[in-house]
Amino acid sequence: MINKLVEKIKKTNAPIVVGLDPMLDYVPEHIKKKAFEEHGETLEGAAEAIWQYNKGIVDTTYDIIPAVKPQIAMYEQFGIPGLEAYKKTVDYCKSKDLVVIGDVKRGDIGSTSAAYATAHLGKVKVGSKEYSLFDEDFATVNPYLGTDGIKPFLDECKKEKKGIFILVKTSNPSSGEFQDRIIDGKPLYEWVGEHVDKWGSEVMGDKYSYVGAVVGATYPKMGEVLRKVMPKSFILVPGYGAQGGTAEGLKPYFNEDGLGAIVNSSRGIICAYKNEHYKEFGELNYADASRKAVEDMIADINSIF
Amino acid sequence: MINKLVEKIKKTNAPIVVGLDPMLDYVPEHIKKKAFEEHGETLEGAAEAIWQYNKGIVDTTYDIIPAVKPQIAMYEQFGIPGLEAYKKTVDYCKSKDLVVIGDVKRGDIGSTSAAYATAHLGKVKVGSKEYSLFDEDFATVNPYLGTDGIKPFLDECKKEKKGIFILVKTSNPSSGEFQDRIIDGKPLYEWVGEHVDKWGSEVMGDKYSYVGAVVGATYPKMGEVLRKVMPKSFILVPGYGAQGGTAEGLKPYFNEDGLGAIVNSSRGIICAYKNEHYKEFGELNYADASRKAVEDMIADINSIF
Repeated sequence: MINKLVEKIKKTNAPIVVGLDPMLDYVPEHIKKKAFEEHGETLEGAAEAIWQYNKGIVDTTYDIIPAVKPQIAMYEQFGIPGLEAYKKTVDYCKSKDLVVIGDVKRGDIGSTSAAYATAHLGKVKVGSKEYSLFDEDFATVNPYLGTDGIKPFLDECKKEKKGIFILVKTSNPSSGEFQDRIIDGKPLYEWVGEHVDKWGSEVMGDKYSYVGAVVGATYPKMGEVLRKVMPKSFILVPGYGAQGGTAEGLKPYFNEDGLGAIVNSSRGIICAYKNEHYKEFGELNYADASRKAVEDMIADINSIF
Repeated sequence: MINKLVEKIKKTNAPIVVGLDPMLDYVPEHIKKKAFEEHGETLEGAAEAIWQYNKGIVDTTYDIIPAVKPQIAMYEQFGIPGLEAYKKTVDYCKSKDLVVIGDVKRGDIGSTSAAYATAHLGKVKVGSKEYSLFDEDFATVNPYLGTDGIKPFLDECKKEKKGIFILVKTSNPSSGEFQDRIIDGKPLYEWVGEHVDKWGSEVMGDKYSYVGAVVGATYPKMGEVLRKVMPKSFILVPGYGAQGGTAEGLKPYFNEDGLGAIVNSSRGIICAYKNEHYKEFGELNYADASRKAVEDMIADINSIF
């Protein structure tokens, strides 16, 4: 799947991923109105609203982007109907040939970690039958529990030719509380980065590993170090735009081949219609505003090369 | 909810929690047969099987235990039907007045962390209505992202009078890869433990905090240190039994009041019928084997006082 991601980035010339993180507040009134008319102000109504909202954005952007990253928490907060909307979104994006990164940040040990890996990347056996579950192409994984938590995901990656992005240095202000602490002369995130490099060396695609890393756009100096620590890993970069990361700051996250990083924007794209800059589109044409925001983001990021 | 947990532990004289982590391999044949007859070898069939299996165990044990801890990964691996079985299990256990610890190990930042907190502890607004979602009493949370990831859970804990258990030192063999690394003279888990103590001081119950910690039974020396670092936090202790933790090793996890820790056993209880020691019960009476294993575990743990 890393090979497909690389190929799609080259084809679209867009090292970006659109974060499908729908809040009900983001959804235009006309979509909510219709969903609530059909299902009432219920969880099913909310799920229908976020699904239709997503669909609109995917329909106007799928031809110019390589990948999407739905954040499962935003769906989980609407319970089972919300998770059904998540699954529908994943399936729809795959039908549009987009690479789907499930931002699930799961992490546990042994058989539990294996169960998560099955849920998101693999297939489960029921009697003599086998079923795919959420079936994303990539999943994000938390490293706090060490190799025991990662290994079952590596096994699934090998089997299904899928991938993971491991949290290394997150984009949030308090990420340094633990991640930046110095251990034997190096910050924790660097130790985690070295593990990512090691874990990733076991599951190589053509040029990049099935194992990538999450490194926030808000810490470019650390991005520069981590790029060198994990030369074979793709870096998934959150924090561009809304969280304050700039295009210029993204340079160190890329390798000399112009690859190796994929930059996420969520709110900046899916809520573009609420932005002063794109207000001429209006709420009804929210999805066109998203497409324009994607085009602007691609141009902005390509300006650094 | 921490007050209720303390009260229930006192009433049952059982500082234990039963881990409801059903694998399909654990489910007795007669339950699987019935479920597959009704639903076929489908995800719905698997979900029905694990739900009936859980129900049997809850029905025979609820009067002698204070709490259960369903591990959501084991349900997530059966997709949406699996998560419906999770929700059914949570609701059923609550109807039996058990405290439910959702072992979800979620962790993200800002609005995403808030969405997870809503999903598991809170209520979501849809138009003018409000809905509970998975609605566990406690959730487990991963600390790697720092305060930004924890704060939204603290807010929800305050609002709903619920609680969290933060991963501090996990029970698995590789937990030391990052958690044991020395930072300014102290291991990372101790730094995390100090944060747990600080976060917990903001949301106190009568005697213990709404914020507890996960510390594996497999590391009793570290448990002893952490007990002192977080005097007001309940410690949720996995790793007893199957993973090698012993009752004698559990002593340091408790405070002098005989409280402050709750010991989990999953496989040891729910798979008791497969254990040589309880084989006289037979597969049909698997739930009675579980009750006996609970009684033996309570006696074993109380022997240390």
